[in-house]
Parts: sequence; C-alpha cells; structure tokens
Amino acid sequence: MESVDFLICGEILISHPNGFPIHRGAVAVKGDNVVAAGPLSELSKSFVANKTINRPSGLILPGLINSHTHAAMVLFRGLADDLPLKTWLEDHIFPAEARLTSELVELGTELACAEMIRCGTTGFVDMYLFEDSVASVADRVGLRAWLGEGVFDFPSPSFSSGEEALKETERLMNKWKGHPRITITVDPHTPYTCRPELLRHSRKLAEARDALIVIHLAETEWENAEIRRLCGVSPVEHLDRLDLLGDRMLAIHCVSLSEDDISLLARRDVRVIHCPESNLKLASGVAPVPELLEAGVTVALGTDGAASNNDLDLMSEMDTAAKLHKGIKKDPTLISAPEALSMATTWAAKALHREEDLGCLREGSKADLVVVDMNQVHLSPCYNPVSHLVYAARSGDVQDVMVAGRMLMEDRVLTTIDEGRLLESLSRAVGELGL
Amino acid sequence: MESVDFLICGEILISHPNGFPIHRGAVAVKGDNVVAAGPLSELSKSFVANKTINRPSGLILPGLINSHTHAAMVLFRGLADDLPLKTWLEDHIFPAEARLTSELVELGTELACAEMIRCGTTGFVDMYLFEDSVASVADRVGLRAWLGEGVFDFPSPSFSSGEEALKETERLMNKWKGHPRITITVDPHTPYTCRPELLRHSRKLAEARDALIVIHLAETEWENAEIRRLCGVSPVEHLDRLDLLGDRMLAIHCVSLSEDDISLLARRDVRVIHCPESNLKLASGVAPVPELLEAGVTVALGTDGAASNNDLDLMSEMDTAAKLHKGIKKDPTLISAPEALSMATTWAAKALHREEDLGCLREGSKADLVVVDMNQVHLSPCYNPVSHLVYAARSGDVQDVMVAGRMLMEDRVLTTIDEGRLLESLSRAVGELGL
Repeated sequence: MESVDFLICGEILISHPNGFPIHRGAVAVKGDNVVAAGPLSELSKSFVANKTINRPSGLILPGLINSHTHAAMVLFRGLADDLPLKTWLEDHIFPAEARLTSELVELGTELACAEMIRCGTTGFVDMYLFEDSVASVADRVGLRAWLGEGVFDFPSPSFSSGEEALKETERLMNKWKGHPRITITVDPHTPYTCRPELLRHSRKLAEARDALIVIHLAETEWENAEIRRLCGVSPVEHLDRLDLLGDRMLAIHCVSLSEDDISLLARRDVRVIHCPESNLKLASGVAPVPELLEAGVTVALGTDGAASNNDLDLMSEMDTAAKLHKGIKKDPTLISAPEALSMATTWAAKALHREEDLGCLREGSKADLVVVDMNQVHLSPCYNPVSHLVYAARSGDVQDVMVAGRMLMEDRVLTTIDEGRLLESLSRAVGELGL
Repeated sequence: MESVDFLICGEILISHPNGFPIHRGAVAVKGDNVVAAGPLSELSKSFVANKTINRPSGLILPGLINSHTHAAMVLFRGLADDLPLKTWLEDHIFPAEARLTSELVELGTELACAEMIRCGTTGFVDMYLFEDSVASVADRVGLRAWLGEGVFDFPSPSFSSGEEALKETERLMNKWKGHPRITITVDPHTPYTCRPELLRHSRKLAEARDALIVIHLAETEWENAEIRRLCGVSPVEHLDRLDLLGDRMLAIHCVSLSEDDISLLARRDVRVIHCPESNLKLASGVAPVPELLEAGVTVALGTDGAASNNDLDLMSEMDTAAKLHKGIKKDPTLISAPEALSMATTWAAKALHREEDLGCLREGSKADLVVVDMNQVHLSPCYNPVSHLVYAARSGDVQDVMVAGRMLMEDRVLTTIDEGRLLESLSRAVGELGL
C-alpha cells in the first residue's frame, strides 16, 4: 500500500471531457500531483490516505481554467451597464480605473479569487494593472495563475509608458520565477493601443523569456476598421507582419475575423480565448468558434472581467458557449457539451502549453480538481454527467476545490480566504472610492 | 396598529423593475395579499406582524413568473443533447414521452416545482400531458400555475384525438374553477400539429370560457416554410385568418417572424413568450425581441422544458435574454436589466392579464415574492441591485419564496416538498423507465 495525502472519492469521476464517466471513482493525491485516478475499488487496494474526502453524491472533475479575466474589475461589477461602449468606457470605467491603487487591485483580486474558487475555477489568466498585487493574492490564496501587466502606449495608474510596463513585466518574471503556480506573461493590450514598436518589444521579451503573449485581438468591427485604416490590413494580419503570431500567443476575443484571418491563426497555431458573455454584453458580436475549431485552432474559454459579464462564472460561460453557436448557426450539433467542457479544461491546458499536467486527471497531473454536488433537484435525473455539468449545473453546486494538492474550498467553506473580513474591507474601500 | 400575518424585512426592496430600490424595505402580508410595501421605518409604525422574517442582507423582489415550460420534461433532462432536431425528437424525446403516465407526470412536475421554487419562481405556465396531475401538484406545493393540456391532431399517452384533448381541457376548467392559484388555459400545440378545424375549436372554447390560448408559434424556419407550403401564408397570418390572434393569446417562441408578422402580432395585441436558451440550444435562432418591443408587443420570459434548456432557471434566462440581443444586434443598449426583469415579472403579469395583482409588490398585489441573499462574493460590491439580479445573481442565491402569502421556501428549505423522498421516488421511477 502506497501512502498518499488525499483520497477524494465521488459518485462519478470525469477524468477527461471525452472520457467515460467512472462510477464510484476516486483520485489519489500526493504532494501537488495526482498519483492515480480511477475506480475507488482499484485505488483502495493500492493507496492508504492521510485524509479521505468522501462525497457520495459528488462528481469529481478537472479544475476549470478561466483563460481570460481582469480579476480586480469585480470592483466595478454592475457600476454601469446597457450603455454605448464609448459612454461605458469613457464616462464610467476609465474614470473608475484612474482611482486604482495596488491596494485596491489586491482587494479586488482577492474578491475575484473567492468568487472563482466558488465557481470551480482552479486557474486563471489575468491581464490588468498592478499585477504584482495579483500575484501576491494568487500566491496567498492558492490558485494557479498566469499574470501579465497590461502594456499600452498611454500612462496607467501603475506605470507611465508602455516600455515601463514591459520593464515591470521583466521585474515580475524575475520576482516570481520558479513559483510552482504563478507564471508571468507578456500582455500587449490590443493592436490599436500599442504601436508597432511596442508590439515588437513585447514579442522580443516573450521570446527571450519563453513566455506567453496575451493580447486582446479583433474584439470588434471598430477595431478591424481602425487597424485597416491605419495599417491597410486586418488586426490579425497586422500582428502577423510584426511576427507576433505563434503558438505562444493567447488571442483574446477574436470576434471580428475574416476567413483569411481564421486560416492565418490556424497556420500560426495561435490559441484563441473565447469570452462569449462579455462579447454579447458589450455588443461586440459572436466569435466564429465553430469555424476556428474546424480550422484546427485551439479554443479556450474566459469570462473576461466582471464589469462586462458581470460575473466570473465559468459554469455559466460553458453553458452559454455550448448554446450560443447552435442558435446563431442554426445547427444543434455545434459545440457539444464535451467540447464546452474541453474549452475550460483540456483545451485551456493546451492553450497554456500545459497539456502534459493540467486539464485532466491522471497519474502525473497536477492535483487541480473540483467536486460538484449532484444531489440537487436541478441535476436530477442524471443520464449524462457531462451534459449536466455544462447545461444544468451551477457554480453553487461546487462543493470542493483543490489546487496543487491543497484544498481551497472544503464542503463550500473557503480555507484560504476569510470572506467576512474581505466583504467588510471591500465595503469600506468602495465607500472611500465614492463611485 | 394593524395586525398582519407576515412582515418580510430586507436590506433592499425592489417593488417594481423600474422603481427605485428602497433601502431597508419591507413587505406586509395579510392572507394572500400584500397590504403594504415600503420603507421598514414606515411599515413598522403601522403594522404588527404575527411572523417577522428578517433578512439583513436580503433583496426582496416580486416573484418571477416562468411563462412557458413543460414542467414534467425534467424527467428527460440531459437524456439527449447536441443532436439534429429530428433525431433528438424522433429517436429520443418522442419514444420517452410515449412511456409517460399520469404518475410520472406528477413526479416530474413535483421535481420541476422544487427546482422552480429554488430559482425564485412563484408562477409558471405549463403545456403538457396529463395536466390534471400538474394541477394537483401545483395545488399541493403552493405555486401559482396556468395549465393547459396540449392539443394536437395525433394521439398522445393521455388522449386519442385533439377533440378529446379539448374535452379534457373543459373538464379541467370545471374541476379547477375558482381555485385561487390555478387557471386552465387552452393549448393548441402548434399551427402544424393542429388542423384549422382544431384551431377553430380551440378558439371557440377559449372564448366561451374566457380563457387564455397558449400556442407554440413560428419557432423555426422549417415551421414557417411548412405552413407557407400548406396554407400559402406565414404561421402568424395563418392564425390570423382563423381569427385566433388576440390579447388572450400567449404565442411561444416567435423566432421566425417577418416584419409583417411583427406588426400583425402588435395590432392584435398577442403576447409573446421569449425562450432564448431553448431557442439557442435547439438551433431555432434568436427571436426578434427588440423589434417586438419596439412595435409595442408585450414580451414575457420562459425557460421551455428542461429537455431543451436544460434547467428551469429564470435567473439565468434573464441574464441570457439581456445579453443575447445586444450581441446579435451589436447594440449594447438593447434589453436593459430592468427590461429583462420586467419580462419575468410585470410583463409576464400583463401577458397573463394579471397586471392588477401580479408582477410587482404594492398594496393589493398577491403576496408572491422572493428574497435573494445579497451577502455573496459574486454580488459584491453592489452599485445597482437590478443589474445584479439580472447579470450576476444565481438561483442558488434565492433564500425565501412566498406565494399567495404562504412560505414555500424559508431560508433555503422547501416547506411543501420533501426533496429527499422526491429524489428517491424519482430514482426508482427513472430506473423503471429504463431510458
């Protein structure tokens, strides 16, 4: 008998979005790794656990990865809605962001992390300001995180120029190097907020440090028209001319794409992050995800920030992603439930170059997992657990969350965040912000 | 001091989707009516309550109305997804429905009611088979319900012809006449499953008994083409020729409409029920709700059955309705949060000819109300409670539900349904069904 730290036992184990559900399944965890995932009857013959977590009505699945957010923007959740984009940004969001400090970003990020853990999220990809604060929070609360300081040509509350933002990115890379859960990315904001020079410098830094590049790309028709006006080509072609496209790029949104753009993204192996709810709410449109998948592009899922969603709920984002494209293209076979779950697990892991150890549960995977309590009227009966996860389960059904072998939520109680204290601090800070 | 049965006290009272939120608001309830709704400081001067429910972080709002569902179809939740419509219906849903009995419909409806109460739903409009069983459940569990036996030209498990279904409808009208919460409707299934003769008989019965007519209408392009092929006009025009259109009609779906159809629906004052998630999932498309509203049509919201959604969650349906049209029409001002909430409250009440006493909370309203627990990380901070209800709150946040002055859920515990026993019965029945 091998000794392990945890044995997590459920009614059903989904170790992979396309795998067969294993009834009475279990996961054995040692350190931050999965050492085995399979039928409890087999695992119980091989492992003796320091702690056993029994969830007789639990569905165990790989932790969800939110591949795009601006976590601290939960501070502006519901501050302004249903407005023209320019009014929303210029009259509400930009003035609010101008008041941000590293302390506020830290507070907002902790709030966002509490929400994400409660939604079954074990990792998130964040682009914002004061990312050192974001890293500190991710380090403390135990989530896995890919973090990049937003880089653009105008001053922000955290730096005075794009070049300074890149210097800050390098500093963060040095500071957080080797952290088991935190990875620093290079985040040029958009093709229209970064001059070609700044985009080239971003690429060079990413190459020199073997880092991911995260960029908002082709979010709107306006962006498309603006880059065409300035550069004579589409935003995707513009980045290709600057030699930025490649498998280290996470291209966020990709709503306004031509067929040529899609095949270019596929040829360059760019990974696309789909944020359907934000794209709808901001009236950007619907990304051509079926066409991207058909072309062979890896697509992962993000919530975007809570100011344009207005939550960080990947469970509902999977539901939206699975339904939306069927309705728009009038084809009910598009984006199946396993595909929607893949966008939040295995495909996210691939987008992040971590398919070896994230996104599914097998020997050698990182122990990032979630237990969903299926003993609910709205999850009954259950013919197909993956269908239920995507189309019927809600974030409130998430019972346990483990990241890197550490329980961050146990039976719906957060173990690394004091929610009462957090909400009190938030209330005080928002009062002082005076929004 | 006037004596009342209940005083429900919250942090915020939203008595109407377009009203100002009242801080430290309360609702006084006597019998099945609201006798006052306003600031607690005022109500506490006038009323002494038999029972006071204090919810210091609660948002009190009018109960949500699910204006279209097939409740018992929760039995087939997730049975089959992501398939072409014909395969889904003919290979999965129809064979499953052929096995239905009144006992199974009763069981399914009770399960659906448990789910709906947990989602903050206080009333639902149901079209299905064995509606007498549905009425019995609604009577017993305490929900408000508008119920109609589905009428069509082919035999069903509950009757052998459309004319028999109309006779059953009359029988139900007589049986449930005068019930304070249950109203029987006349439910011809669709223009393509009911011959003109049956549609005419449906209209006559509805007129004779002053009942609502509930019909699926213009759900798909296929229906449009089929009715054009058979009758030479659109489904909407077809019903107009038969003199069916009018303010007693609830037209479900209305996805495939021409401009002429929209103006005809407006002229005839037909009420449209929007089911965005089901329309997406079944790949029917997106109903032209902004155009319908612009033309002056009353639009309410429904989840449709759980086989095509796959839940009965009006909170998430409001979110989808508010976001979807913005993205499709690329206009972020369409379907504001108050409009989405109206579709589930005041506009639903209007569709049902109950704007006098349902859909908002004021003196003389029926005491159908919900308390949402706002003390949640994903609802913090709160700048605008109506925005939060639509874009960020989840059904799991619903803490209390009252219908007609009776608490159906108190602090998340159902008072009229034994969920444990229900789930056991369900498990047994589904095992016997062998789906």
